[in-house]
Amino acid sequence: MDTSDVAKAFAELCKAGKHEEAGERFWAEGVVSLEPMEGPMARLEGKAAVKGKSDWWYSAHEVHSVETEGPFVHGDQFALRFAVDVTSRESGQRMQMTEIGLYTVRGGKVVEEKFLFGL
Amino acid sequence: MDTSDVAKAFAELCKAGKHEEAGERFWAEGVVSLEPMEGPMARLEGKAAVKGKSDWWYSAHEVHSVETEGPFVHGDQFALRFAVDVTSRESGQRMQMTEIGLYTVRGGKVVEEKFLFGL
Repeated sequence: MDTSDVAKAFAELCKAGKHEEAGERFWAEGVVSLEPMEGPMARLEGKAAVKGKSDWWYSAHEVHSVETEGPFVHGDQFALRFAVDVTSRESGQRMQMTEIGLYTVRGGKVVEEKFLFGL
Repeated sequence: MDTSDVAKAFAELCKAGKHEEAGERFWAEGVVSLEPMEGPMARLEGKAAVKGKSDWWYSAHEVHSVETEGPFVHGDQFALRFAVDVTSRESGQRMQMTEIGLYTVRGGKVVEEKFLFGL
């Protein structure tokens, strides 16, 4: 699968609400996940750690909706735009956020995912 | 100016339809511009060349609207989402396209811009 194929399949799973399956299928064993924040979530390495972050996120939020737009493709990278509507279980605060996920593909797998947050 | 400052100012100019001014103000002298296509437009280097491409694009299309969303920021990079509605002056064909512009900032200037096209 080339980058476009991976991008299309990954986006399709996200649009169907199957984010976990998208990761399971396409994260490389050594995938690096980068968030624009300080602290332990800023950089995680390895499929298990990244899955752990994802599981934490889904358990920490009540997800009202996640809309996925894309993919947008260039060379070995693709991007998705997410519009997220969630309530934090800890604070009770409801938040609408948009972000861009930028994915780098090697050998048919996502070796890096990097999230850019809307200001 | 850090990346967020550049991102906000660049986005604001784009939203005001001042793409040319955004480039003039923020492109580094050696800026590299990458398009996901074959041919001479695939990679251009230097402010003059990139401005030339931009001028060509605006002259080759009748622009009905360009909507800019963002910025989305992570470290030294920011992204904008463009929704473009144009008519090619050559073919007469009207096209709606979405794309992501991914910008890398160094020393308060954009040293690389990379466009990811919506599939």
